[in-house]
Amino acid sequence: VDELAIIERFFRPLAGEGSFGLRDDAARLAVPAGRDLVVTADMIAVSVHFLPDDPPATIAAKALRVNLSDLAAKGAAPLAYTLSLGLGPDAEEDWLAAFAAGLRRDQERFGVALIGGDTIAVASGPVIAITAFGAAPGGRMVHRFGGKAGDALYVSGEIGAGAAGLAILKGRPGPWDALPPGERDRLVGGYRLPEPRVALASVLAEHASAAMDISDGLLGDCDKLAATSGCSATIRAEAVPLPMGLAEAGAETVAGLLAAGDDYEILAAIPPAAEADFRAGAAAAGVSVTRIGELTAGSAPTQLLVDGVERPVYRRAYIHGA
Amino acid sequence: VDELAIIERFFRPLAGEGSFGLRDDAARLAVPAGRDLVVTADMIAVSVHFLPDDPPATIAAKALRVNLSDLAAKGAAPLAYTLSLGLGPDAEEDWLAAFAAGLRRDQERFGVALIGGDTIAVASGPVIAITAFGAAPGGRMVHRFGGKAGDALYVSGEIGAGAAGLAILKGRPGPWDALPPGERDRLVGGYRLPEPRVALASVLAEHASAAMDISDGLLGDCDKLAATSGCSATIRAEAVPLPMGLAEAGAETVAGLLAAGDDYEILAAIPPAAEADFRAGAAAAGVSVTRIGELTAGSAPTQLLVDGVERPVYRRAYIHGA
Repeated sequence: VDELAIIERFFRPLAGEGSFGLRDDAARLAVPAGRDLVVTADMIAVSVHFLPDDPPATIAAKALRVNLSDLAAKGAAPLAYTLSLGLGPDAEEDWLAAFAAGLRRDQERFGVALIGGDTIAVASGPVIAITAFGAAPGGRMVHRFGGKAGDALYVSGEIGAGAAGLAILKGRPGPWDALPPGERDRLVGGYRLPEPRVALASVLAEHASAAMDISDGLLGDCDKLAATSGCSATIRAEAVPLPMGLAEAGAETVAGLLAAGDDYEILAAIPPAAEADFRAGAAAAGVSVTRIGELTAGSAPTQLLVDGVERPVYRRAYIHGA
Repeated sequence: VDELAIIERFFRPLAGEGSFGLRDDAARLAVPAGRDLVVTADMIAVSVHFLPDDPPATIAAKALRVNLSDLAAKGAAPLAYTLSLGLGPDAEEDWLAAFAAGLRRDQERFGVALIGGDTIAVASGPVIAITAFGAAPGGRMVHRFGGKAGDALYVSGEIGAGAAGLAILKGRPGPWDALPPGERDRLVGGYRLPEPRVALASVLAEHASAAMDISDGLLGDCDKLAATSGCSATIRAEAVPLPMGLAEAGAETVAGLLAAGDDYEILAAIPPAAEADFRAGAAAAGVSVTRIGELTAGSAPTQLLVDGVERPVYRRAYIHGA
């Protein structure tokens, strides 16, 4: 790892305002007036969060997007990020060039820039640690806590696509085997490259009482949101937007998808009085949102109803298993 | 890696203001009024930056301190940090407990707190990525650039201790073999646990035209400071403060120590008119500083004088080789 050459060739072109062209030891990050600085950190590693032969551009984009997803869930628009990159002995220039190209594409798309980082050698890589910075309207950062019994629960996009995409990649048999090839490709693409709901950030800051991104499975993450809000929750399986053809695959498959991870959609608690405005704001932002249940009084784990009947949930927290 | 259990048991006790007890997806970082936010990121990995059997508390402290050292060089007082921790299959609770204890001790000592992070499984660990945040007086962040020909060059502490400590640990023969055991232990301790010059930050913000921390060898890092400042530099070997007993070991050893890394001392350019106040400020902060040379006109690599005679420098950039 010749760090200086790597920075010069691959990362300097990504450097944003306050980074001094990555030629200093640190960056200066300006926080827009009247905004709160929101900070999140997510790390991904080969064979755990992505596969060794995944395209480097999508690995880079995924490393960035899992962070942008957290910012969006907190109501924060992305500003900048630092990148700490551990490269294994087999790292090659072509890989780095494609990795940097993936970052560049997402930087342009999501309005965020690299302001610092580190590149080191590791025994087994890549290992990618990003810390991302966002700006939320002053006093309006959205938390996991803050939800109230009676708030409606919404999710963005669809749930289970990441888990189904991973199952396809790993050759695990399931109802996805019967899907048309184009739909299977879409699910694999969704696993490799989640869509951070950046456009929903300001809508959440305005209307949500609580929110988080779903990185460890809808049911387990709903437990977390409800518990930190001092509530319980009910989710109706039929209401959850699943990928085409999977909702009909039986209660076992549906419950599995609702417990699985890697969706990076938003789960939000919306007070009833704000629901209409939240839906309108999401539509204006171009993000589909679906009401899937509500927060309830109590402290029990999330209640999953399938056709109105409570179904035991076997597996609450997803263990990453790529 | 049971991330939730690890956070609950080991990292929640370290959580600072704005971290919401690490129970949210992101932190809110408040920047003191009139201060600039300075951001730095450094990553360290087993067998590259530390040895597998190094004490976990010193590994943790080193991961934090290399970041605090960067902040100090920029004139920034530490505020907070995020920690992304990749744990190998052999990670054990005792190791984590000692690692967290090392962080806690340094948090208290340096006035900094954990505000977020991530804990993941990696094939070979530990891999530790910290992004640290500091506050510099508004408009007074110190850069690598900004030095002028005629500025005096100062270093804090002593140079070469980290490299000598590593050589002792690795059993490489050298003049350190003749040192008394207590001094050898001190050098090993200096390699394992560098002393970030946090107390010097405000003095640098007030007086330095340029500064950086020396993490890749004095001579190579001096090249970087001089080049980004549009200058060259001269260093007099006799003036450089070396560990006891090593200055007398011959020009070859001295030149090697000046090219080696892992010191984490500060290299600063001080305009002549500010030298007296800089020395007084450093003394008041309890940090020894030594004038070792000056910035000069031109763009040549750093000139090393030994007894007034220019000596070719064979090895400019240190390759981490623990």
